Amino acid sequence: MVFRIALIGTGAVGRGILEAMSRKELGLVLTGVADSRSGMISPEGISPSSLLERKKKTGLCGETGISADDVVKKAPYDVLVEVSPTDASTGEPATGYIRTALSRKCHVVTSNKGPVALHYHELKQEADKAGVLFRFEATVAGAIPILHTLHESLGGNEVRALYGVLNGTCNYILTRMAEEGLSYKQALDEARALGYAEADPTYDVKGIDAAIKLVILANTVWNRRISLDDIDITGIDLLTEEAIRLAEEQDATIRLIGEIIPEKNLFRLSPRIIPRHHPLVVHGSLNAIILRTDLAGDLVFSGKGAGSLETASAVLGDILSIRDRYAGGN
Amino acid sequence: MVFRIALIGTGAVGRGILEAMSRKELGLVLTGVADSRSGMISPEGISPSSLLERKKKTGLCGETGISADDVVKKAPYDVLVEVSPTDASTGEPATGYIRTALSRKCHVVTSNKGPVALHYHELKQEADKAGVLFRFEATVAGAIPILHTLHESLGGNEVRALYGVLNGTCNYILTRMAEEGLSYKQALDEARALGYAEADPTYDVKGIDAAIKLVILANTVWNRRISLDDIDITGIDLLTEEAIRLAEEQDATIRLIGEIIPEKNLFRLSPRIIPRHHPLVVHGSLNAIILRTDLAGDLVFSGKGAGSLETASAVLGDILSIRDRYAGGN
Repeated sequence: MVFRIALIGTGAVGRGILEAMSRKELGLVLTGVADSRSGMISPEGISPSSLLERKKKTGLCGETGISADDVVKKAPYDVLVEVSPTDASTGEPATGYIRTALSRKCHVVTSNKGPVALHYHELKQEADKAGVLFRFEATVAGAIPILHTLHESLGGNEVRALYGVLNGTCNYILTRMAEEGLSYKQALDEARALGYAEADPTYDVKGIDAAIKLVILANTVWNRRISLDDIDITGIDLLTEEAIRLAEEQDATIRLIGEIIPEKNLFRLSPRIIPRHHPLVVHGSLNAIILRTDLAGDLVFSGKGAGSLETASAVLGDILSIRDRYAGGN
Repeated sequence: MVFRIALIGTGAVGRGILEAMSRKELGLVLTGVADSRSGMISPEGISPSSLLERKKKTGLCGETGISADDVVKKAPYDVLVEVSPTDASTGEPATGYIRTALSRKCHVVTSNKGPVALHYHELKQEADKAGVLFRFEATVAGAIPILHTLHESLGGNEVRALYGVLNGTCNYILTRMAEEGLSYKQALDEARALGYAEADPTYDVKGIDAAIKLVILANTVWNRRISLDDIDITGIDLLTEEAIRLAEEQDATIRLIGEIIPEKNLFRLSPRIIPRHHPLVVHGSLNAIILRTDLAGDLVFSGKGAGSLETASAVLGDILSIRDRYAGGN
């Protein structure tokens, strides 16, 4: 059976999805695509490899006369795959696209943190009403399927605490400061040179990105209605080499840790001193998460927290589990 | 909506499920239950807490005139929950119960390795034909939702290798030999005293239990048709203190590692020397798994590999994900 997707966004994540689609037999047909300047609708299906080539040559994925809005409103699809850049303050234009898709009774998969952090309960309600699924595995911890695990696999458990390294850029900087004795500024410059940090690193190093992930976890797993203002946030931008050296002298190190302890209404992100061989002390740009549960005990997960193919992996996991559920399969 | 289950087996796992059902509001109704000597059928529902009390007092869960077979054939249920002891050579009587439930077009969840290791493809085909689900998360790695992750979350990935510590008893023995310089026999006696090892530990220490888990992974994730004979097995029963001491002198240790590299047709279980701070070096009775994938990179999971509530967690995860899929919910 044919399962149709429309893709909004052809940045790093969108390209990762298109690359995977062109290399693998996934049983998906791409019937619409849009970037910020162009779009294309084709009920017969668009070739992912030709699309990647066209985008590389011309910078456009389609025709300038067709907008993302047109694709969301008019393309025939089963799942809208929304992977445009995150706007953490408004969630737009992604939230509008998602609302439109849900109103058309189409499933939605997104890697976009804005709509989920700002409008989860409203969007989930619209999805339930339409009898479709709204999935967003890629918004938290990159390639680690932590939302799938929390929302489904651990269904019988009460998850009493979550501790996590949720931002790879910060973890890279802290790893390099500890390993090489670099200053914060030196490590940040290195992270920038390697593409781990943006030109303006504020969003990462001040903890905003990781805190948004805590909001998403709190609202979607523990059914809270919190926003960024409810998270107690300390970033890593004021950390000194001295602090890290002192931790290392005690066979420990410093990591930026997100914590959720629902019973205590504790939602916090802060640099913490941790024993050097603790499971949360992952290196480089990795992410790690510990779940403390009543039945399953402690569970630890680690893996790549960002990257084009890694994020595409999470998006594809969502798409394919929807396909298996609604279009036959296991 | 009411979701009905029948429970076959009231040993440690069955009791864990009943305890969780009595403590939590899971929306499940128990309409049948059986142990090896008695059974009970009640369309109105059986109270899990009264049942636990009766079993404790009398040693029976129901009436001696009602068999497990009667419950499987006659109780009204949506999911058969089969958690009777594993018979690794025949898979019976569990396989017969599962076939009966599938022929009644009922979903099946099991923690029983026998039927899955011996008859997976046949049972999966029967389940597909009946339009129901056949789930067995609890058969591999206890509380770690590794099958859910492999079957669903990583759907878009090619998993190129799996490495795992899959038997908690062996891992406990190896941990104690390394940490305390115990002999194999001393560590085994300690494991027995603590209830981590059976009176006859052959099944664990010779690697049979872990190898059966590799068979289940190979057949259900990579669609192979292998049996225990196809696994290259070395247990830990011949390991000397000397071997472990030598590893420790090199800042390494020994762990019993299961490996699957599908491209090379490699299915092996053997004690391996591993750097002391490698993610697979978990301690005590923990399990750990590394997946090497094409899109998501390397993912690491660890958690409790056995235990009554931990296994119950995996079984409940299966039951509740079936309920959410077929009886409303997300």
